[in-house]
Amino acid sequence: MKRALLLGAGGFLASHLSRRLLRDGWDVTGVVLDPTAPHVLQRLGETASEIRIVAGDAGDRTLLERLVPAADAIFPFAGVSGAADSVDRPLADLRANVEGQLTLLEVVRQGAHPARIVFPGSRLQYGRVRRLPVDEDTPLAPCSPYGVSKLAAEQYHLLYHEVHGVATTCLRISNPYGPFQDRVDRAFGVVGTFMAMAARNEPIPLYGGGAQLRDYVYVDDLIAAVMLAVADPVAVGRVYNVGGPRPVMLREMAELVVETVGRGRVEHAPWEPVAARVETGDYVSDISRIGRELGWAPRCELRDGLAATWEALDPRLYAIP
Amino acid sequence: MKRALLLGAGGFLASHLSRRLLRDGWDVTGVVLDPTAPHVLQRLGETASEIRIVAGDAGDRTLLERLVPAADAIFPFAGVSGAADSVDRPLADLRANVEGQLTLLEVVRQGAHPARIVFPGSRLQYGRVRRLPVDEDTPLAPCSPYGVSKLAAEQYHLLYHEVHGVATTCLRISNPYGPFQDRVDRAFGVVGTFMAMAARNEPIPLYGGGAQLRDYVYVDDLIAAVMLAVADPVAVGRVYNVGGPRPVMLREMAELVVETVGRGRVEHAPWEPVAARVETGDYVSDISRIGRELGWAPRCELRDGLAATWEALDPRLYAIP
Repeated sequence: MKRALLLGAGGFLASHLSRRLLRDGWDVTGVVLDPTAPHVLQRLGETASEIRIVAGDAGDRTLLERLVPAADAIFPFAGVSGAADSVDRPLADLRANVEGQLTLLEVVRQGAHPARIVFPGSRLQYGRVRRLPVDEDTPLAPCSPYGVSKLAAEQYHLLYHEVHGVATTCLRISNPYGPFQDRVDRAFGVVGTFMAMAARNEPIPLYGGGAQLRDYVYVDDLIAAVMLAVADPVAVGRVYNVGGPRPVMLREMAELVVETVGRGRVEHAPWEPVAARVETGDYVSDISRIGRELGWAPRCELRDGLAATWEALDPRLYAIP
Repeated sequence: MKRALLLGAGGFLASHLSRRLLRDGWDVTGVVLDPTAPHVLQRLGETASEIRIVAGDAGDRTLLERLVPAADAIFPFAGVSGAADSVDRPLADLRANVEGQLTLLEVVRQGAHPARIVFPGSRLQYGRVRRLPVDEDTPLAPCSPYGVSKLAAEQYHLLYHEVHGVATTCLRISNPYGPFQDRVDRAFGVVGTFMAMAARNEPIPLYGGGAQLRDYVYVDDLIAAVMLAVADPVAVGRVYNVGGPRPVMLREMAELVVETVGRGRVEHAPWEPVAARVETGDYVSDISRIGRELGWAPRCELRDGLAATWEALDPRLYAIP
């Protein structure tokens, strides 16, 4: 039985990762800031009794010094997300997303721990790009504090591999979606936000016509990439884009959400100022490197992924009859 | 009379900048963590009575909120330096070099202050490069925590220009040298360290044969670039390499220091482990962009710069007869 340390276990991606780890027979320890928060309880679900939950700050050095030595693999999925939100709280973003990662890396290198690490970076590290699809050699020029924080954290991971031999792999994830992404308390992720709006029978606002290209990766596909990255020796010290099966216009995505949910509607709207300032324009991942080196490809088509996401949505949270 | 806010006024570069600002008729407020530290007193010299010294942490938000509104130009030169040192204290480096800069940027944008800013970045943001000379479009892949911290800080500066209209200019400085770089208490800068060794009649150790190419920029030339950057509207939102007049092997530099000082000697030595891990290999700045856009070029030849540096060195600090 392998032992996983999952930092930020109450998050959207982490909640899927812990299910997959449990299914594969791993022993899972999850650090969660507030295990009693409603969205955390919702995401942990039945796994709450199967993983060892540690309430605490994932960037707390003393806590990490206690937990890291017992881990064969570390998944530092703690942090704050959201490009637009980060504009108003860049320092919180820096502390959670960079200082927390660097503290972990320090604990790992000072103890010379051989644990494998998979860092979940973001396509937002690229910022506005000139050419599609975007491969991993594209210059990084983030256009949001969130993107800068992910870029800095990734640089520390790569540096700790290079200088100290820490066994880390960095992913640059496009737009992930799937069950438990929706949050009642605030907007979270493109698909999560759209689906919450549709569930409430609210209009989904599309800024600037909604022609922006994106690729969307279903969470099960993404977690499959994480599991390959943590197991394959080839992945150590490498950076991989992880993206969806095809480019999709934002408009098409919104329409598919409305169709899937059977409620809500798409509405054209003028750009919301903060959204406009951090908008990257078209983005499509080039995922050939991870295909070539780790044999990964996304399998889930958008329509199927949205259906599964909708099916898992808790109707009580949205007062759906 | 223009008003300058100089953060980290007790530093090597800042002490030259304050002299130049005073000479040009600026009103200078300098923030220094410890104005009584011996190397700070040495560097401030006669200017201690001409600039308004504020003792404090340059990353202290309350302090910045008080000082920023009264500044026409801000020079955020506070922070910690040294690639090798940063390996042992990456979190201190992150807090001083990134969080401090981001706190300043937040204060500037929240007050919508129109002050010009010149951020002193480093050639260490590039890391190990494949092609010489290195222009500003070269991918950034730092190989030390110091390099990562400077890269992250620069990204925040560029982002605050892009998203919030903050009037910042970023420099990537190669190897600066000049009077007051030497420190009795610890190694500081290539030339500063070499000259301190020669002054003590100690051998200068050259790792790996000393064939590494570098370019060295005399501090007066560098300060001239800072003054152009803060005054020229073209420079807002731009990044510029600032480097020396020609590529020089480390060996030649060490020999010139010994010749200039008339003491010490060059000694070949095996790589010191930490130095080897953060060594970038050959580096030479391409300084054509700043030449083209701001009309800057380095004027001081190495031999003249070293002579001026030696002349300014305080013999009492090294027990030189």
